[in-house]
Amino acid sequence: MRIREIHLTPVAFRDPPLLNAMGVHEPWALRTVVEVVTDEGLYGLGETYGDLSHLDRLRAAAPELIGLRPHALHEIHARVAASVGGDVVTDQHGLTGAGSNQKTVDAVFAAFEVACLDIQGKAAGVRVADLLGGPVREAVPYSAYLFYKWGAHPGGEPDRFGAALDPEGVVAQARLLIEEYGFGSIKLKGGVLPPDQEADAVVALRDAFPGLPLRIDPNAAWTPATSVRIGKALEGVLEYLEDPAPEIAGMAEVAARVPMPLATNMCVVTHDHLPPAIAQGAIGVLLIDHHYWGGLVRSSQVAALCDTFGLALSMHSNSHLGISLAAMTHLAAATPGLRHACDTHTPWQDGQDVVAPGALRFTEGAVPLPEGPGLGIELDRDALAAMHERYLACGLTRRDDTAYMKRFEPDFVPKRAHW
Amino acid sequence: MRIREIHLTPVAFRDPPLLNAMGVHEPWALRTVVEVVTDEGLYGLGETYGDLSHLDRLRAAAPELIGLRPHALHEIHARVAASVGGDVVTDQHGLTGAGSNQKTVDAVFAAFEVACLDIQGKAAGVRVADLLGGPVREAVPYSAYLFYKWGAHPGGEPDRFGAALDPEGVVAQARLLIEEYGFGSIKLKGGVLPPDQEADAVVALRDAFPGLPLRIDPNAAWTPATSVRIGKALEGVLEYLEDPAPEIAGMAEVAARVPMPLATNMCVVTHDHLPPAIAQGAIGVLLIDHHYWGGLVRSSQVAALCDTFGLALSMHSNSHLGISLAAMTHLAAATPGLRHACDTHTPWQDGQDVVAPGALRFTEGAVPLPEGPGLGIELDRDALAAMHERYLACGLTRRDDTAYMKRFEPDFVPKRAHW
Repeated sequence: MRIREIHLTPVAFRDPPLLNAMGVHEPWALRTVVEVVTDEGLYGLGETYGDLSHLDRLRAAAPELIGLRPHALHEIHARVAASVGGDVVTDQHGLTGAGSNQKTVDAVFAAFEVACLDIQGKAAGVRVADLLGGPVREAVPYSAYLFYKWGAHPGGEPDRFGAALDPEGVVAQARLLIEEYGFGSIKLKGGVLPPDQEADAVVALRDAFPGLPLRIDPNAAWTPATSVRIGKALEGVLEYLEDPAPEIAGMAEVAARVPMPLATNMCVVTHDHLPPAIAQGAIGVLLIDHHYWGGLVRSSQVAALCDTFGLALSMHSNSHLGISLAAMTHLAAATPGLRHACDTHTPWQDGQDVVAPGALRFTEGAVPLPEGPGLGIELDRDALAAMHERYLACGLTRRDDTAYMKRFEPDFVPKRAHW
Repeated sequence: MRIREIHLTPVAFRDPPLLNAMGVHEPWALRTVVEVVTDEGLYGLGETYGDLSHLDRLRAAAPELIGLRPHALHEIHARVAASVGGDVVTDQHGLTGAGSNQKTVDAVFAAFEVACLDIQGKAAGVRVADLLGGPVREAVPYSAYLFYKWGAHPGGEPDRFGAALDPEGVVAQARLLIEEYGFGSIKLKGGVLPPDQEADAVVALRDAFPGLPLRIDPNAAWTPATSVRIGKALEGVLEYLEDPAPEIAGMAEVAARVPMPLATNMCVVTHDHLPPAIAQGAIGVLLIDHHYWGGLVRSSQVAALCDTFGLALSMHSNSHLGISLAAMTHLAAATPGLRHACDTHTPWQDGQDVVAPGALRFTEGAVPLPEGPGLGIELDRDALAAMHERYLACGLTRRDDTAYMKRFEPDFVPKRAHW
């Protein structure tokens, strides 16, 4: 069985005005749908970032993979690395840590890897989770991922989620998401308001939802000193504190002085970051993300490394569609050490998808592992075509939360160790 | 597809009087052949230690796995762990490092895991290497594994390999093995003679085979001080120095003062050893061995960890048959970071095997990856039956090189940090 064709389709879907340390989500979120087709007529799906620079790297790598076997993952990685060359993606939206060549290669590879695993599973009649050692849980718990947000994009219609700019708004948002999805954990994206106001929101969530694990993620908007102060104030309230301050050294400084573990998807985002972060005791929880850790198998290897070094695991999410949700669910189902609820942006996608309905659903805050072979999902080609049209029409080619924010607040500055 | 039956067959095969720090190999080497059979009639093969205590643990675990899917490796590991309980195998033969519960579980699990991967590959029509990311090399180089040895077991007929008790004998043995197998690397098992004599043998090998990578493995028979002295004396001669002194702390002391990397299969033999060994800079090369690192997938995860921490990889070997050679070859073929020739005892097996002829062969010191699905080998059931008869007849139930040596040299003491 050989790879005969690869189709790359950039898509756009509506995104609410979610606020973060870098600015605000634009009205359209971009993704790329990857479809790998074999000479036996099987197809496998992957999903990855939609930024044009990334899409260009995917387009450059794809032809190099034609004729390879979908099982030849090491060879596919090598071909991708050769295609990417010395290229380094910069963290243009400021939310996912330092760029590196390793991370750039792994991010391009990941989308193809997931598609190849989908094919491997379909060909063998087993689920992708079975290719990763088999599920240790048949449903994967996700967290309610709360955002400070405006009620509408400026000039646009109000969305159904409403505004959330204070503790009451945040609690109301949590209530809506928990009602609809049944989430049993809550994450608040912070870095938007002064830290004490965000800590107040966390306390309000604790009071409104006693017993539910809580996290806040200021995206490194705080200084180490502020992180320590807020961390101590939230003792017994947070299950973990995510990326309060920038860089491994800053996180290590905080980790030594706060009572809860620190989690990260910013200071440890590629293999080179693991040794210094571990040596310095900078983190207690790694938020794995197969989209930039080189796919599902390499993510499970990183998970095994975390087990060896006593690091806990959770899962990071960017705005995504159902292909990514399926991949995340298979990975999480087959990762014994992943004991925190995973993050997902699914609620903000609000029903838009390229995956045909039926395979993916939430039950009590968890996604049951799809039952079919491979990822267990099918592409909705009409939806794909429509979302691709929206991509072409919307005119966006890269995510830039800061530039979009500055259109409405010209004096806005991205928050990095700001407070 | 479910596991319907598991057959465990202890076997014995003739072993020459190979010397080491603990004594001398007995006339029979013991192994256990594991056969896992599915309800669809597929069978998968594994091979592991033949010591009775290990066999008993295999026999206790096997019934717990009936009815599971061969893809449910995490679940199989959990069942094995529950079956093993708090049991800890002691390193009774003194050559493979500290025992631990983790290592005991992983050693029992490994034999079943390999058999399940064999089944997974057969069911999918792909090779086991394909289940590990695909081969990055189609043939796996092995080293000529030299031993000081007697010309015959006391009271027995001389074997065809002859005695090797000085540099000339060692060089002659290397010449024989290289002639027959084409090996391009050489390893000398040391810890037998005073260190300077063994260093002389290494220099004689260098002179006789210029350009071939050389290693010596005294099995921790040297003190750190002696290790440093010999290590410095062999600068430029050894590619690595394997387990010169005991324990992580001892190895770290040596590693800081010798010019070549230290390798180990003694001070790092389970996950718990990795963090302190890495923190102390104790080793530069890990000799992976799927038999106690929990099988092929977990070994490839450890290999990925080594890549992340800048550790090189080689592969450890005990006396083994063709099932293990096939498994080792698939693992090594699919492990990009494994760039040293692997160790194997195959020459000492001298044609005895439970694997049907044809699938496994050496070409220029390397074993081409078998072409068939799964491990690519078939069981020779007549040979298995004959070797099982020998197991029953030989009366051995555990390896004990020291006791056997003491029958001929009553004053013999095992060498641990001895010189």
